[in-house]
Amino acid sequence: MTTHKQLHLNAFLMGNGHHEAAWRHPRSKPEQAGTLAHFAHLAQVAERGKLDSVFFADSLAINDNIRFNSMGRFEPLTLLSALAAVTEHIGLIATVSTTYNEPFHVARKFASLDHLSNGRAGWNIVTSARDDEAHNFSRDSNLGHADRYARATEFLDVAIKLWDSWEDDAVLRDKASGVFADTDKIHALDHSGEHFSVRGPLNVPRPVQGRPLLVQAGSSKDGKDFAARYAEAVFTAQQTLEEGQAFYSDLKARIAAFGRDPDGVKILPGICAIVGSTEAEAKQFEQELNDLLNPEYGLRQLSSMLEHDLSAYPLDGPLPDIKSEDDINGGKSRFTLVTDLAKRDNLTIRQLLARLAGGRGHRTFAGTPEQIADELEIWFTRGAADGFNVMPPLLPGGLEDFVDHVVPVLQKRGLFRTEYTGATLRDNYGLDRPASQFAPTPELELVS
Amino acid sequence: MTTHKQLHLNAFLMGNGHHEAAWRHPRSKPEQAGTLAHFAHLAQVAERGKLDSVFFADSLAINDNIRFNSMGRFEPLTLLSALAAVTEHIGLIATVSTTYNEPFHVARKFASLDHLSNGRAGWNIVTSARDDEAHNFSRDSNLGHADRYARATEFLDVAIKLWDSWEDDAVLRDKASGVFADTDKIHALDHSGEHFSVRGPLNVPRPVQGRPLLVQAGSSKDGKDFAARYAEAVFTAQQTLEEGQAFYSDLKARIAAFGRDPDGVKILPGICAIVGSTEAEAKQFEQELNDLLNPEYGLRQLSSMLEHDLSAYPLDGPLPDIKSEDDINGGKSRFTLVTDLAKRDNLTIRQLLARLAGGRGHRTFAGTPEQIADELEIWFTRGAADGFNVMPPLLPGGLEDFVDHVVPVLQKRGLFRTEYTGATLRDNYGLDRPASQFAPTPELELVS
Repeated sequence: MTTHKQLHLNAFLMGNGHHEAAWRHPRSKPEQAGTLAHFAHLAQVAERGKLDSVFFADSLAINDNIRFNSMGRFEPLTLLSALAAVTEHIGLIATVSTTYNEPFHVARKFASLDHLSNGRAGWNIVTSARDDEAHNFSRDSNLGHADRYARATEFLDVAIKLWDSWEDDAVLRDKASGVFADTDKIHALDHSGEHFSVRGPLNVPRPVQGRPLLVQAGSSKDGKDFAARYAEAVFTAQQTLEEGQAFYSDLKARIAAFGRDPDGVKILPGICAIVGSTEAEAKQFEQELNDLLNPEYGLRQLSSMLEHDLSAYPLDGPLPDIKSEDDINGGKSRFTLVTDLAKRDNLTIRQLLARLAGGRGHRTFAGTPEQIADELEIWFTRGAADGFNVMPPLLPGGLEDFVDHVVPVLQKRGLFRTEYTGATLRDNYGLDRPASQFAPTPELELVS
Repeated sequence: MTTHKQLHLNAFLMGNGHHEAAWRHPRSKPEQAGTLAHFAHLAQVAERGKLDSVFFADSLAINDNIRFNSMGRFEPLTLLSALAAVTEHIGLIATVSTTYNEPFHVARKFASLDHLSNGRAGWNIVTSARDDEAHNFSRDSNLGHADRYARATEFLDVAIKLWDSWEDDAVLRDKASGVFADTDKIHALDHSGEHFSVRGPLNVPRPVQGRPLLVQAGSSKDGKDFAARYAEAVFTAQQTLEEGQAFYSDLKARIAAFGRDPDGVKILPGICAIVGSTEAEAKQFEQELNDLLNPEYGLRQLSSMLEHDLSAYPLDGPLPDIKSEDDINGGKSRFTLVTDLAKRDNLTIRQLLARLAGGRGHRTFAGTPEQIADELEIWFTRGAADGFNVMPPLLPGGLEDFVDHVVPVLQKRGLFRTEYTGATLRDNYGLDRPASQFAPTPELELVS
């Protein structure tokens, strides 16, 4: 048992794995990836490794690259609720968009999941950036970037009020008097704002954690300010230690500027870790995956990410000069990361596709368990990370590799827990349980 | 093993049970009713009894009677998804409203639940009738009855197209060619209607059952027509055999008038069965529950149901003459059932409250297992029911009583299955798996 600071690990789960060609690899069983058994196994493996949480991303439209990849996505809350029933300790983080949802529904679902899981729910708060998502929700086009964040901000304020609307001691269940709840401790919101009017209160008692863990992943300026204001954990894509350090110190400063404790927000860069028992074995596994890549697929993904059709450019030529982040309506920070990466390493389009194949812009690293642990330790100890968003290239194999081989090295170094010590997701991340904003301020205890 | 027709049984689950005072009874543990363990036990007991399905009702606002009852409600899909992971055979039916939701979200969640449960999802389709629900979704007042049904109808058409949007054989997962899905078999909807514009396709493959089982529970004229057009199972409240028979034959005729097979829609009246090993014991249990009633609670519930404040009327006087069903915007059929019941049996308000305490208008019957089985058999064999919506007065005890004592009597009489014979919820109810509307019509086989 060590007492020094330890890092946090989230398992980012996705179908057959994060590498675009994972489903084609001999270790992969794509016919399993649409079953509860597959995801239950993944969550149980992550829990065996004492990870803080598992996480599912989301989008609200079919991938237009479906011909070459991807099963489609189960709705993350539905999936996590099933996983709550087959796990005990691990946190359960679902992406839900604020753009085409109602705060009452979303607050209620997370409150339900938090109760059903005994305090293990987390919400990755996103906005929906794509026109093809708008088309599924009676809109001709997507909301602009600023409008999406304005709506998200009001959405969060309402959701938090809804979770707070039952004070912690509102439920009495007094059989003798027949009084079930103290209605003086259950509060209407009477929220009336630009995007929502919500009277409340919620029809579910206050969540076990007070509120689910609030997670954020956008790294644009609006995204960082949103994170600084609300987030308790942040997923981010950073390619180099220097970029990671710059993002980390920038975001921590923004958090402080909002009057919050920078230690109360955990920053978790993504890492697609490809594990081998020797470096050569890891590199070979990476090569096997890359050899199965379909450039047509990658090119369409990249064109969509950059909002620019690249099909007319030679694969073995450079990325053309295209618009800047300011012209991007979708994921602004990912645009800049990818164009910077291509320029910095002087990559052809084909080379860029291979670099993006493992983690869509997240860092990919192939090596032995010790080499991977070294990398994580460096980022953790040099001010680039409070932990990591672990993105296995192939599932379940890549997660098993990480849990069985990398985690023990981190534990031996005292960098990671060997047992769960708390009961909730907030406990896993070392975060406090917030008080209800409707609860009376406790009186100061006078020193006698 | 019998070959004659058997009845169907759905367990309608709710917190501490259906009787208003259940939570105050010594057999009840209200502190357990908000846990997954409670609901997992209930689902497993129902499955031990070989029941067709479990079901959760819903509403989108806090019960304004919360002082005297009710924990609040977990969001039903979230709860059922957790139960999918701890059961194998039993169907999982969730109420979701069409009034404040989007078809894409709802279709996707049910598709997800259907995959995760291997084909056990069912949707009880409702409209939201209360102003206090409207106030949680940025509306000043509720939609009118006809508007709600018009929206529900378009909502269903879109949801069905979304489930159908992937043909059954669209997913190929061909590792060698790298083709994951046959995009010629995944279809956009391009739906553009009065309430919704949805391009589609869904981002989840076709559900295991093709579509979730579609359930409906409104018994107004609009409700019955909606059921006749879409429903595959119908929950209904009927007080007497004659009323049950009249409803049954009326609805079956409406189904035929829509060109559908009347046997393809299972009609399940609700029954709050209070079980005792002797009749006296059953009646005593009922009396114990009624002795714990709080008239203030019941009166507020009744006032809300009848859309008329009854607090000024003497409890031991008759129900006053109030408006007719035509003036009711909320649950029309329940209004008529309750006012008819009071008139027919010449009840005081206090007596009416006791009659409604067990099932809010559903029939309550206290007796031995044989007496209860007799009642069910009479309704089943005399054209009033294809099965029953079982509403235990107290949970888990009342469900355990029913499964351990009433079900074996029904089985002995050949009226109920002794083992699950199919794999899906549709199989449990003896219903076909629908083909996708986008699939090519199979060519007729010519007799050679």
